[in-house]
Amino acid sequence: MICGVWRRKGKMAVNVVESKEWYLAGYAAKGVPTTDHLTLRSVPLSLSLDSIPDAHVAVQLLFISVDPYLRTRMSGQEDGLYFPQFSLNQVITAFGVGRVMRSKDEKYSEGDIVLNAFFPVAEYCVVPSSVLIRKIDPEAGIRLPEYLSCLGVPGFAAWVGIEVLGEAKPRSNAFISAAAGGVGMVAGQLAKLKGCRVIGSTGSDAKVRLLKEEFGYDDAFNYNKETDFDAALSKYFPNGIDIYLENVGGKMLEAVLNHVNPHARIPVCGMISQYNQIWTEREGVRNLLNIVGKEARMEGFLVGSYLDRFADFTVEMEGYLKQGKISSKIKIYEGIQSFVESLGSLFSSSNFGKVVIEVNKPR
Amino acid sequence: MICGVWRRKGKMAVNVVESKEWYLAGYAAKGVPTTDHLTLRSVPLSLSLDSIPDAHVAVQLLFISVDPYLRTRMSGQEDGLYFPQFSLNQVITAFGVGRVMRSKDEKYSEGDIVLNAFFPVAEYCVVPSSVLIRKIDPEAGIRLPEYLSCLGVPGFAAWVGIEVLGEAKPRSNAFISAAAGGVGMVAGQLAKLKGCRVIGSTGSDAKVRLLKEEFGYDDAFNYNKETDFDAALSKYFPNGIDIYLENVGGKMLEAVLNHVNPHARIPVCGMISQYNQIWTEREGVRNLLNIVGKEARMEGFLVGSYLDRFADFTVEMEGYLKQGKISSKIKIYEGIQSFVESLGSLFSSSNFGKVVIEVNKPR
Repeated sequence: MICGVWRRKGKMAVNVVESKEWYLAGYAAKGVPTTDHLTLRSVPLSLSLDSIPDAHVAVQLLFISVDPYLRTRMSGQEDGLYFPQFSLNQVITAFGVGRVMRSKDEKYSEGDIVLNAFFPVAEYCVVPSSVLIRKIDPEAGIRLPEYLSCLGVPGFAAWVGIEVLGEAKPRSNAFISAAAGGVGMVAGQLAKLKGCRVIGSTGSDAKVRLLKEEFGYDDAFNYNKETDFDAALSKYFPNGIDIYLENVGGKMLEAVLNHVNPHARIPVCGMISQYNQIWTEREGVRNLLNIVGKEARMEGFLVGSYLDRFADFTVEMEGYLKQGKISSKIKIYEGIQSFVESLGSLFSSSNFGKVVIEVNKPR
Repeated sequence: MICGVWRRKGKMAVNVVESKEWYLAGYAAKGVPTTDHLTLRSVPLSLSLDSIPDAHVAVQLLFISVDPYLRTRMSGQEDGLYFPQFSLNQVITAFGVGRVMRSKDEKYSEGDIVLNAFFPVAEYCVVPSSVLIRKIDPEAGIRLPEYLSCLGVPGFAAWVGIEVLGEAKPRSNAFISAAAGGVGMVAGQLAKLKGCRVIGSTGSDAKVRLLKEEFGYDDAFNYNKETDFDAALSKYFPNGIDIYLENVGGKMLEAVLNHVNPHARIPVCGMISQYNQIWTEREGVRNLLNIVGKEARMEGFLVGSYLDRFADFTVEMEGYLKQGKISSKIKIYEGIQSFVESLGSLFSSSNFGKVVIEVNKPR
């Protein structure tokens, strides 16, 4: 909520805003986090230039990226997961797109659209300019939430998984789990562009149709309807699996390990089926021995370790987007208050594509 | 048993031998194979030159390598393990050293000492000369069973695991399981030569002493005395694990995954704790999610895929042996009849070092 007045191109300037933000009220060891764990509060934020430190910018958030890894930062368990735990009573952070309102860094001007991996999940913020990843050209013909989807964390994760670690080649047999999610939908399309045969698993018949009709998957199945994953993989992969982009873990991984070909690659992007339990209650994978006989390579990755390739990725992906070779389905939740609901949607079978929240309308 | 007469350097030639050999009488889905599954029989073998096909050699076996992977070829389960299952009623094959008795290939002469990865587990055999890996120079100052130990399958597996996939570097923290076994004893010494800090796990206090006193491990523990592997690894790896040479699987792997450092390498040589169960009864590993957060790489390997590096390995390892930088403990069982007992010893905690059987005395 804007409490003061904001001068822009001759208009009066706002000097104080009431910014709503989500903070962590309590850890959720199990289950999907709710408003018992995440609480919305309103804090006054001064936007007067005097109050902004040097080398900082004041930003109005436009879009915030809602990704499964965020949940792993709310468990209170330091079990080797991704980034450190969020601190109690501190604001949550996430990848986002915002507009610069005030700048104390000559590289940024009022009105610039900027990307940051660790924006507060808030309406407004003041952050060091050094954390901004880059400026976005709003005239490039790419809608802004796409910078959080194909051109953001999930698109880059798909690219690292399929092209770097998966070593996708023509005629490779590729399997993508959580295939209609933010990473999966891009991964499948990338694998098709590399000439792979691509099969996806997802959580509803509607998403099976989406994968086949919009994202060009050769085939797909609804894991909620398959009682026997092993039989399903026998059917869809008569010639075995060369690349498995792992997004779910547990029983699906176990089934895959019974179908991998020699020298299969299993880039491990995440294991969403396992995030809502403490580790001793997670599903054990019993057939890891197969990775010896098949000489399979299972490799975990965090996109932050591949930032030296982010520019290559961006050029390639922007090209695909402009040529219409890759498309993205983005579910936009309205307003900062929708964060908890949007996060919960990732762990149901209802979610389609990339989830973002629109915090403020882009002008 | 020699039934005829064998002419060598002027003596009369043997033309028929009774050769004892081990064949698979029945698969062992679970447990350690016994004489219920493996049976010794005696077969007459003609050694007359006329009866030996062109490009074949007749060989008297001297030493046979007894390795855990052999057990996985006797389960009757094609669950992605190593080599195909042995066929019922067919002779078992194994890595071995033999002496050429007759040759129908000009590259080999009577008396040559030869290596083969798939010798019949027998006293004598006739095999295509194309399967022989190489001739051994008996004057090289290296005892013959060493060609099945440091210079054979386990030594090469240790080298691939530590140097190729493990990327051992000075000050890496390396953990070796089954550390006093054929692979482990070489792997630990190689890791020390690369400057790593090396800890081993093994099955008895006597073997703990062996690792520390003979093989130069920085420390070692007896897994039969540790009730809590996780606590043991906290104690021995206060700075985490960079390389885990996986030989055992199950609960030890699970414990290791709670201690891996970012970008840890887990070359998977084998999982001996898992060989004697059918896969659905094996121990599930519940914390694979750690490989995402730690970006760990777990990669299975079979030495057969690295044969292009075998010559490099041989030069390096022969150098270490001649300089006394690596030593090997070899348990020699006497006579072809000891095969089943020697195989069973691999699955008890009693075994020290590399197990071989001496089929015939080298002259």
